[in-house]
Amino acid sequence: MELAARTGTTVELAAGDELVVRNTHGGQVVDTWALSAENPMRVLSAPHTWMRHGRLAIRVGDNLVDNTRRPMLSMIEDSSPGDHDMLIPSCDLARYRQLGVEGYHDNCHDNFFEALAAAGFEAPQFVPQPLNLFMRVPIAADGAISIDSPLALPGDHVRLVALEDVVVVLSACPQDLAPTNGVGRTPTGVTYEVTGPRA
Amino acid sequence: MELAARTGTTVELAAGDELVVRNTHGGQVVDTWALSAENPMRVLSAPHTWMRHGRLAIRVGDNLVDNTRRPMLSMIEDSSPGDHDMLIPSCDLARYRQLGVEGYHDNCHDNFFEALAAAGFEAPQFVPQPLNLFMRVPIAADGAISIDSPLALPGDHVRLVALEDVVVVLSACPQDLAPTNGVGRTPTGVTYEVTGPRA
Repeated sequence: MELAARTGTTVELAAGDELVVRNTHGGQVVDTWALSAENPMRVLSAPHTWMRHGRLAIRVGDNLVDNTRRPMLSMIEDSSPGDHDMLIPSCDLARYRQLGVEGYHDNCHDNFFEALAAAGFEAPQFVPQPLNLFMRVPIAADGAISIDSPLALPGDHVRLVALEDVVVVLSACPQDLAPTNGVGRTPTGVTYEVTGPRA
Repeated sequence: MELAARTGTTVELAAGDELVVRNTHGGQVVDTWALSAENPMRVLSAPHTWMRHGRLAIRVGDNLVDNTRRPMLSMIEDSSPGDHDMLIPSCDLARYRQLGVEGYHDNCHDNFFEALAAAGFEAPQFVPQPLNLFMRVPIAADGAISIDSPLALPGDHVRLVALEDVVVVLSACPQDLAPTNGVGRTPTGVTYEVTGPRA
């Protein structure tokens, strides 16, 4: 399936289903969330995932846990260099205002709510902290963080397996005023597919 | 005012009010949240605060921003060594289950909701990621994180000023199965006071 540049979508996964997200053109960040299909207040949680693994990076084989510490997804393949930020919040209109944008600008915050609404899913009150697939945020020794151009090459992918029934939300990040999606600052689309026992 | 060991409370601040949180006995972590008095869905946000300052640590003079990137509080004094974690989620019953506790255990997650309910405030659906005052979480070069005994001495304090009307929630962390609150693993109470133009 194609996820067009700057847009979001939902992907329903049954337990055991696998989701591949492919960086078709390379260098594109994909803000990713997961909500329990039974209770949208149970969401994939970055802080609880860090706590579980004792580190700020996720690796192949890691479970991603929700805000009740229950494993929700597992990352089972990653052909990219492995940068998947969980520290930086979704871009939103407030961020684009800070960057000088006066009118509307596509943003991952709105994509999250619009994708859930379009598919008829209940949304939580807040945008949860996303898993930013392919996003490169180096952490310096003094705790300084910066947003660098991604190293993911065209065709790089990650594969996640659902450990329960979940609604995943994907947003092809529309940031074009910072190197979030590469030095060319040209957001692109990505592709995704669902495979696995029940797909 | 005294905040008893293992308990939570709310503190209402008008814009300009200052809140001092004092580590009476030293080594005690205080999970701290702030909600807009007008809209409890606008909450102090760790990721948005990191993004604003480009680092994972906060320092004297830093504004703490909410999930709409609006400055909500500012840290204007800190007599402690300066460790104030924002990465580790609140302890909750699920965490104590992982640590082998079978019955109930006081926890910051429940303190958050109980303090808001006791004061008649609407709570958000989720426990927001807290600002863990005095909590020491070193970040290694490889992104590994660990929870170390706090360095805050008896009497150390931080002073926050409210930049708008907010409801602050404080929880004297009841963690007694890890060195979160010191190697003695003995949670204590803390004191707090509100001063400033309208106190």
